[in-house]
Amino acid sequence: MKILVINAGSSSLKYQLIDMANESVLAKGLCDRIGIDNSFIKQTRGSEKAVVLNKILKNHKDAIEAVISALTDESIGVIKNMSEISAVGHRIVHGGEKFNSSAIIDEKVMEAVRECIDIAPLHNPPNIIGIEACQAIMPEVPMVAVFDTTFHSAMPEYAYLYALPYELYEKYGIRKYGFHGTSHKFVAERAAEMLGKPLSELKIITCHLGNGSSICAVNKGKSVDTSMGFTPLPGLAMGTRCGNIDPEVVTFLMDKEKLDIKGVSTLLNKKSGVLGVSGISSDFRDIQAAARENNKRAKLALDIFCYDCKKFIGAYISAMNGVDAIVFTAGVGENDYDIRKRIVDDMDFFGIKIDEDKNCVSGKEVNISAADAKVSTLVIPTNEELAIAREALRLLK
Amino acid sequence: MKILVINAGSSSLKYQLIDMANESVLAKGLCDRIGIDNSFIKQTRGSEKAVVLNKILKNHKDAIEAVISALTDESIGVIKNMSEISAVGHRIVHGGEKFNSSAIIDEKVMEAVRECIDIAPLHNPPNIIGIEACQAIMPEVPMVAVFDTTFHSAMPEYAYLYALPYELYEKYGIRKYGFHGTSHKFVAERAAEMLGKPLSELKIITCHLGNGSSICAVNKGKSVDTSMGFTPLPGLAMGTRCGNIDPEVVTFLMDKEKLDIKGVSTLLNKKSGVLGVSGISSDFRDIQAAARENNKRAKLALDIFCYDCKKFIGAYISAMNGVDAIVFTAGVGENDYDIRKRIVDDMDFFGIKIDEDKNCVSGKEVNISAADAKVSTLVIPTNEELAIAREALRLLK
Repeated sequence: MKILVINAGSSSLKYQLIDMANESVLAKGLCDRIGIDNSFIKQTRGSEKAVVLNKILKNHKDAIEAVISALTDESIGVIKNMSEISAVGHRIVHGGEKFNSSAIIDEKVMEAVRECIDIAPLHNPPNIIGIEACQAIMPEVPMVAVFDTTFHSAMPEYAYLYALPYELYEKYGIRKYGFHGTSHKFVAERAAEMLGKPLSELKIITCHLGNGSSICAVNKGKSVDTSMGFTPLPGLAMGTRCGNIDPEVVTFLMDKEKLDIKGVSTLLNKKSGVLGVSGISSDFRDIQAAARENNKRAKLALDIFCYDCKKFIGAYISAMNGVDAIVFTAGVGENDYDIRKRIVDDMDFFGIKIDEDKNCVSGKEVNISAADAKVSTLVIPTNEELAIAREALRLLK
Repeated sequence: MKILVINAGSSSLKYQLIDMANESVLAKGLCDRIGIDNSFIKQTRGSEKAVVLNKILKNHKDAIEAVISALTDESIGVIKNMSEISAVGHRIVHGGEKFNSSAIIDEKVMEAVRECIDIAPLHNPPNIIGIEACQAIMPEVPMVAVFDTTFHSAMPEYAYLYALPYELYEKYGIRKYGFHGTSHKFVAERAAEMLGKPLSELKIITCHLGNGSSICAVNKGKSVDTSMGFTPLPGLAMGTRCGNIDPEVVTFLMDKEKLDIKGVSTLLNKKSGVLGVSGISSDFRDIQAAARENNKRAKLALDIFCYDCKKFIGAYISAMNGVDAIVFTAGVGENDYDIRKRIVDDMDFFGIKIDEDKNCVSGKEVNISAADAKVSTLVIPTNEELAIAREALRLLK
């Protein structure tokens, strides 16, 4: 059974075709600059070099057509025809309170996803367009929606509710939802396998650190708290997002900088985070390079990020009254061993200690705990596409 | 030596006259409704019943005159004349980055306090008016400014800086300042005395829980982090303040509820917190009463507050890589043993355990740790007025 996984953004569309027989990626690719000039599709087959084809992609339907065409192409493709695709798994950012599990897509599900647009105006519309494009091209293929928010839907009320007038929660659904759920769930499950213990007996803190970053407290396999909130803005300092700040800073900035709602939102989402502090880049590799050359603000950006992580880990140890494992994943978490080291340095009070030699790895699954550590520290590459494909398979069985 | 301590608000002015020979409070009182109708002064001498006098208090100068008149009154007073007052200690909310210690007030200090108005528009102006009124009435008496922010001025840069464009820090001083510093410092010092250890060897987490609440990480006698921020809004859910929320909620609410900057600020500062969640009251005693009658939202408000405290304690244990003592102080922290219990319940992973019998006290200095606890949990009534008077004495010596 082959499953196509789609992650549709506003002007891009990522995809993977996964053979569920052995969970191997047959091909993966990206349609970029959809609806803009110079659009193209890039596809990689197995370990081969990527092939880039310039294509006019006026809209997401064009993009899906290009994907099918590339996947079934005689020279660069991996399947003979579309009928080999048994299902499509779609990544949807926001399921609001409407979804506490993945869902087979029908008109009712689409309606509920559309109703979440109000609280995810930037993310859900392109996801919806991606689904509609697929439905137009592959009307007979079953489709599954997998939400970033689902894994966090079991959070207790006291963890997800803000201390705002309760009526605002009832009226608008203002609460913490959390994101990156597919990733947090995937690595937590993998951590249990690595430790050879049932997930139901473990307290795990998963650190999904990338351009967007969030930390999750996973108690007995359930997300009990996470650092993102109503939107993916709060929590840790990120590539360009500010994370937690004094809410009064928002109004102060609007007043002083004469910003409207959109202006201040752009500042907090696109110009802040380690980019804003360092003034250099939102990419941690650039910041690390500058820090090695003693750039003061680059160092400061790293210090702020690592200190934020340290505090969230402590907060979640407290929330769970203990921890068995800390997991690092995603771009920064999997690859940047300096950041991993800074985060867990001076955490021996909790029994967290890493082996610096073991820590010197990138993008590999490895237990980096020191021999005398009481808490396991693990590096686990995330695989949201595989997790989405597995969800699709599970639901369609 | 007798020191008058003044805490001036916009329409009220609290005072205490303290005899520094034995640190006893000779008299304390309140001028209320200054500049409004039905203004009055209320004074209490020692353990006597309070005396309330209706007085026309058009402004803060009238209030200071009323204070001097009450303190020197033949029947209700405690001193013969104003010359017995050796110094005045003023509580100032915001010292910005201009003050890393208390200061003897001169024109230069006043100028610096005025420059902080921009970042403390609600708090510093009445404090300044209070000083000016005192100067007018008691021109010969030395005065000292004691700031809520001073104790936090040693925070490391990575702890006080937000992940915003660095230029905004340079331009406007947007950063974490922290508040309640006089209280956090007072109880941390007292904790060291109770434990019979030098403050310089201790890691202490002080929980100032009242109508406004903040938690502070005190490492070797220095504040290294605290839960309030640029303003006293963020951190814990409070009586009416929201504490930490997704900053995007601010703009979302402005958009949906058609609120301007002032409107949303009022909502977050005055209508949120446990008042907003419970819909009942900002007073924890009212909420506790409703929770005992099984009011769901009252219970939820308490759950949110205690969970917030739990997470900040964990975060600061992580920041300091350990903790020797947890201190509870201020209205709620000193008196509400149910809240203390809920906060430290299920914290034995850290070695925090309380003795439930010992915990059943209100407003008394007591070590409530269980016999087998590794971390001390202490209740210590705060005394900001005494701390201000001590600062005044120290500076004038």
